[in-house]
Amino acid sequence: MLVTKLFCTFVIMITKAEIQLVRSLADKRNRDELGLFVAEGEKLVEELRSSSLRVRKIYALEGVMQGDDVQIVTPKEMERLSMLKTANNTLAVVEQPRYTFDPAMLAESLVLALDDVQNPGNLGTIIRLADWFGISDILCSPATADCFNPKVVQATMGAILRVKVHYLDLPTMLLQAKSQGVPIYGTFLDGENIYDRTLDQRGIIVMGNEGKGISAECAAAVTDRLFIPPYPADRAGSESLNVAIATAVTCAEFRRQAKK
Amino acid sequence: MLVTKLFCTFVIMITKAEIQLVRSLADKRNRDELGLFVAEGEKLVEELRSSSLRVRKIYALEGVMQGDDVQIVTPKEMERLSMLKTANNTLAVVEQPRYTFDPAMLAESLVLALDDVQNPGNLGTIIRLADWFGISDILCSPATADCFNPKVVQATMGAILRVKVHYLDLPTMLLQAKSQGVPIYGTFLDGENIYDRTLDQRGIIVMGNEGKGISAECAAAVTDRLFIPPYPADRAGSESLNVAIATAVTCAEFRRQAKK
Repeated sequence: MLVTKLFCTFVIMITKAEIQLVRSLADKRNRDELGLFVAEGEKLVEELRSSSLRVRKIYALEGVMQGDDVQIVTPKEMERLSMLKTANNTLAVVEQPRYTFDPAMLAESLVLALDDVQNPGNLGTIIRLADWFGISDILCSPATADCFNPKVVQATMGAILRVKVHYLDLPTMLLQAKSQGVPIYGTFLDGENIYDRTLDQRGIIVMGNEGKGISAECAAAVTDRLFIPPYPADRAGSESLNVAIATAVTCAEFRRQAKK
Repeated sequence: MLVTKLFCTFVIMITKAEIQLVRSLADKRNRDELGLFVAEGEKLVEELRSSSLRVRKIYALEGVMQGDDVQIVTPKEMERLSMLKTANNTLAVVEQPRYTFDPAMLAESLVLALDDVQNPGNLGTIIRLADWFGISDILCSPATADCFNPKVVQATMGAILRVKVHYLDLPTMLLQAKSQGVPIYGTFLDGENIYDRTLDQRGIIVMGNEGKGISAECAAAVTDRLFIPPYPADRAGSESLNVAIATAVTCAEFRRQAKK
């Protein structure tokens, strides 16, 4: 038995076409066309296996992971497969989940909306912190970074398995929610001090693009303009916070108030 | 006059050796040896020029910037000089400032301490948010990312000109401060809910490495173990926050309490 197993390990080699297929998933068009994405790292792949997501194939270095869906690869092959700077010991090809967003949840839940957040690291970090602060859904404008970009998946540290990311026409969705009395929050340099406000535990928190902030179309739907004060309050110099940082401070303050 | 100026623009070409020198500053050893670093982007370079830092040389595309210290380069030359994915229109070679840290400031100021924060993006984001929250000094363990790494400089969005980053023996500094009655804060999964605490506006807030958290040596000096609660408080699943995010939420809460 042991001999057979060892033998198999050496015989089933990964084909060039297979490596090309995996690597093609670095590109959004290919990910969308095939409905697949790549997740790397033992912990994340283990979590994926026990989640509701469908794992198509796992590549692992010898001794890391077992199972019918696992193909053992050499460190050299893993390097060719990996999209990270430093290849991990495990890589999975996973089917993209399809979610539908139900606006009815806005009656009692807090949701994030991202208006063209472009940096994959920022998006991944925002998905991770949304998970921490109990925000299960994120609405994204179509120009926001793709949540299945390998860098985003990596930065979410597994939160991509729990937080649902929806791409949709953001201004339309915001205006519709607003017309139904849902509070739409946004951070602006001329907004009201967030610490002077009583914050609802429902509604939409809109965060804008790294350079341009919230677009005029989305800003038109905002009902509550908030501001994270610098310290001291009259401080000049520093002009802004990174979008993921501003999202975190805003979400933390919403949730702090929930405990009152 | 105009003819002469145009003529000069074309005659003074950048040498291969000069490009090599600038590019060598991507490497920490070279930065340290030469005491220089690179900053890119028109806004940042303009800020640098009017700061106390010494700018050695500026490279700019035609029409962006003027002055004796500015050398006009072609877009192709700028691409060769740049360390960013997408080259900017301006690049400066700047002398690294040398700061000394005066522990006496701990009697009335809040300072950050980074225990092996490795990711340049995280360090840059932390420097930027320190600036926003009025924290003028950051103490770093020697294994923390270099604040003059081009990716760090970029992520600080200019805050590197205002926040002083010190590299020193962190456990020794923390223990010394502790012995003088300075409160040493740190975030831990078994810490006390940060929102249940009255926080001082002085002392040191220690943040740990992305993977390992705060080292045992530094943890030994911590006097106040804090915890940023997830939502809901008993939430399982998400395990942690990114270090820059945790730093932001912690600093925001300190400064929120200052306004009471």
